[in-house]
Amino acid sequence: MESANELTATQALGLMREGLLSVEEMAQACLARIRARDPMVRGWVHLDPELILRNARELDKREVKGPLHGIPIAVKDVIMTADMPTQHNSPLYKGSFPTVDAGCIKTLRAAGALIFGKTDTTEFASVTRGGTARHPLDPSRTPGGSSSGSAAVVGDFQVPISLGTQTAGSTIRPGSFCGVYAMKPTWGAINREGLKMLSVSLDTLGLFARSAEDLDLLADVFALEDRGPVKPFALRGARIVACRSPAWDKTEPATWEAFDRGINLLRDAGAEVAPLDLPAAFSALPDNHATVMAGEAQVSFLSEIRAQPELLHEDLTAMAKNSKGVTKGALVAAYDSAAQCRIAFDELAAGFDAVLTPSARGEAPVGTVTGDAAVNAMWTLLHVPVIQVPGFKGPFGLPVGLSLTSPRYTDRHLLQVARVIGPLFGARGAA
Amino acid sequence: MESANELTATQALGLMREGLLSVEEMAQACLARIRARDPMVRGWVHLDPELILRNARELDKREVKGPLHGIPIAVKDVIMTADMPTQHNSPLYKGSFPTVDAGCIKTLRAAGALIFGKTDTTEFASVTRGGTARHPLDPSRTPGGSSSGSAAVVGDFQVPISLGTQTAGSTIRPGSFCGVYAMKPTWGAINREGLKMLSVSLDTLGLFARSAEDLDLLADVFALEDRGPVKPFALRGARIVACRSPAWDKTEPATWEAFDRGINLLRDAGAEVAPLDLPAAFSALPDNHATVMAGEAQVSFLSEIRAQPELLHEDLTAMAKNSKGVTKGALVAAYDSAAQCRIAFDELAAGFDAVLTPSARGEAPVGTVTGDAAVNAMWTLLHVPVIQVPGFKGPFGLPVGLSLTSPRYTDRHLLQVARVIGPLFGARGAA
Repeated sequence: MESANELTATQALGLMREGLLSVEEMAQACLARIRARDPMVRGWVHLDPELILRNARELDKREVKGPLHGIPIAVKDVIMTADMPTQHNSPLYKGSFPTVDAGCIKTLRAAGALIFGKTDTTEFASVTRGGTARHPLDPSRTPGGSSSGSAAVVGDFQVPISLGTQTAGSTIRPGSFCGVYAMKPTWGAINREGLKMLSVSLDTLGLFARSAEDLDLLADVFALEDRGPVKPFALRGARIVACRSPAWDKTEPATWEAFDRGINLLRDAGAEVAPLDLPAAFSALPDNHATVMAGEAQVSFLSEIRAQPELLHEDLTAMAKNSKGVTKGALVAAYDSAAQCRIAFDELAAGFDAVLTPSARGEAPVGTVTGDAAVNAMWTLLHVPVIQVPGFKGPFGLPVGLSLTSPRYTDRHLLQVARVIGPLFGARGAA
Repeated sequence: MESANELTATQALGLMREGLLSVEEMAQACLARIRARDPMVRGWVHLDPELILRNARELDKREVKGPLHGIPIAVKDVIMTADMPTQHNSPLYKGSFPTVDAGCIKTLRAAGALIFGKTDTTEFASVTRGGTARHPLDPSRTPGGSSSGSAAVVGDFQVPISLGTQTAGSTIRPGSFCGVYAMKPTWGAINREGLKMLSVSLDTLGLFARSAEDLDLLADVFALEDRGPVKPFALRGARIVACRSPAWDKTEPATWEAFDRGINLLRDAGAEVAPLDLPAAFSALPDNHATVMAGEAQVSFLSEIRAQPELLHEDLTAMAKNSKGVTKGALVAAYDSAAQCRIAFDELAAGFDAVLTPSARGEAPVGTVTGDAAVNAMWTLLHVPVIQVPGFKGPFGLPVGLSLTSPRYTDRHLLQVARVIGPLFGARGAA
């Protein structure tokens, strides 16, 4: 068999059920990969091999095994973990060690997951200046962000699953850059207690994996439920719409080519693919997203700037001081416009199996700036589920993905779509 | 002078500025009152006099004094404090001691506040079965809840200010029962990071004090800002509307009489007071609030029921199991209906200086059940600011208050209204 660290969670669970793989072996394989690769990828900010192996052995002793029994999961370091520090890549929280688990961590542990370590994030998941993590395929490039380490370590086969967060494009964009599956569920579908607050009406837990099946497994564990029954999905006769999004003018040829190729692959497989033109009101969504994020970030960072202003990154200081000058009137107007667009989008998208749209501007850029969330922000504001599907490549041979989206609380349906489209893009996207 | 524990924060700050009162003296006066009264009121779940006095002496040494310099503030025990346990009145969190401050606590400490201790809450601020706290004027009665201890200790002159939370009526109702000022700011106006999560789109930090000036002082510290300029307010010629709310049929004679008396006092002072009939769509708000709270609570308590189901209160188990059977379709419909009502209410209320509405069904009931949020829930769902103003009395001689509300992000304006109406109700409400 391939080295255990290369398995998806679903594959590893299958072997474990057969008694062919222990949790400790799985953990050791991941640790070996990390030892070999971390000096280049630098995705981890806290990793304690002794703690991991002790927990792995404990899990091996359990008679009752949970649905994520022994699966190593990396955690973005803006999410509280009871047994590891949570430092937000901020000097304000250096050595900070709250002794409670975030809600999502508690749920994962109850499912038997092996919480592995903490991964690199931009400061408070809020700026685009990167931390330590590098792109697994090219250390001169960013893995994206703000969930930089979480995307990099899954893309680099160091662990099968990781957690990130998304307020603009912090899960979907690094997922695309690193060539992995990534999911931003419907806003509110997974508890966000114990995640650092940036923007209360946008912040969402993000999921990274190397297969759509693994995302579906996480959806089971987090009890994601749809607003209606989930029907089987097949490409033949499927109705997909392709949406360039209001930020199309910011995308690059790598994304144009992936988008065209994706549409052609779907058509060749028997799906109808029509263009989706969004109503005029939707053109305000990118600006409204920026308004909501700035207006809410000002509130979120008040305590930090009041406590120790000298330790706050200049970009965060600017947020706390409302340097964009967002008025409360503008904030309320953005809330209300977004609320109307949510209703309209759900109605519009309900007539189709999925909406196909870009995941990022293009390939991962050179440098440490984690990139631009231009194509992601509107979907985050709409609160809809988004799944990044890898498979394409850009001119530098680096991954490019495409996103699938659908109405609020159709996450399980969208996962079924991703489970069919994913293997198609994976097999033929880069051919 | 009266005993220092009876001072409002504004009064105490004035004396401190003149060098007539030290932080330690203020703290000692509060501690003496607590020693005398806590055996009956039982509002505190954690109080460490040594820590308090050590911090008080530190504050007395400071050269630069913050806007809340030395003011004792009690904290509902669902809000994280770095130097005290945070236990949520849940056996799941017995002895839990996260070492970080919630955002609001960090902001208060930076303003020089003396974080005093933790106050009794119903389990996870989520059920109506009370904890230890009793009504300060009648130990056979509830102080209301879920912010039971925070309302009781301010009402009992043990500290001048306290923090609660509100998801339905958990701040405004106990404020009314205990005869104190209470405020639920616009949703999102104060950071809710570090508060236990019940319902992500409803949870709001609540403020208790014994004067409107003190609430205004807190509004300064939390940098509350309005959507427009704040104009001076006077009762002569003011335009007030009186809204019985869709839950009027659940109110009792004590509230009817306070409501009528309040209207007459305002009219006698020269205000125009007209009845406000809400549009038909608003009649769905109480049900929509129940749907949103149940739908979101199911997500919030997933981790607790997965981790240690045997330690969860049966009402919370029911929430985690979605015993009300709220579908995701119903949740989305409730979100969307509420979003439309927010827009409509802001437009409707913008034509008036304030909306007057009940704070509670009536006086504090006998027993340990903390009461009913029927008259509060719709305003929480509308995200608007609400200020409970005390001053009236019911047939048992216990306090009854009335609420003021206005469009989202007009909190500072509403505080100006409360600063004028509060003394009127206080002087004449119970005459």
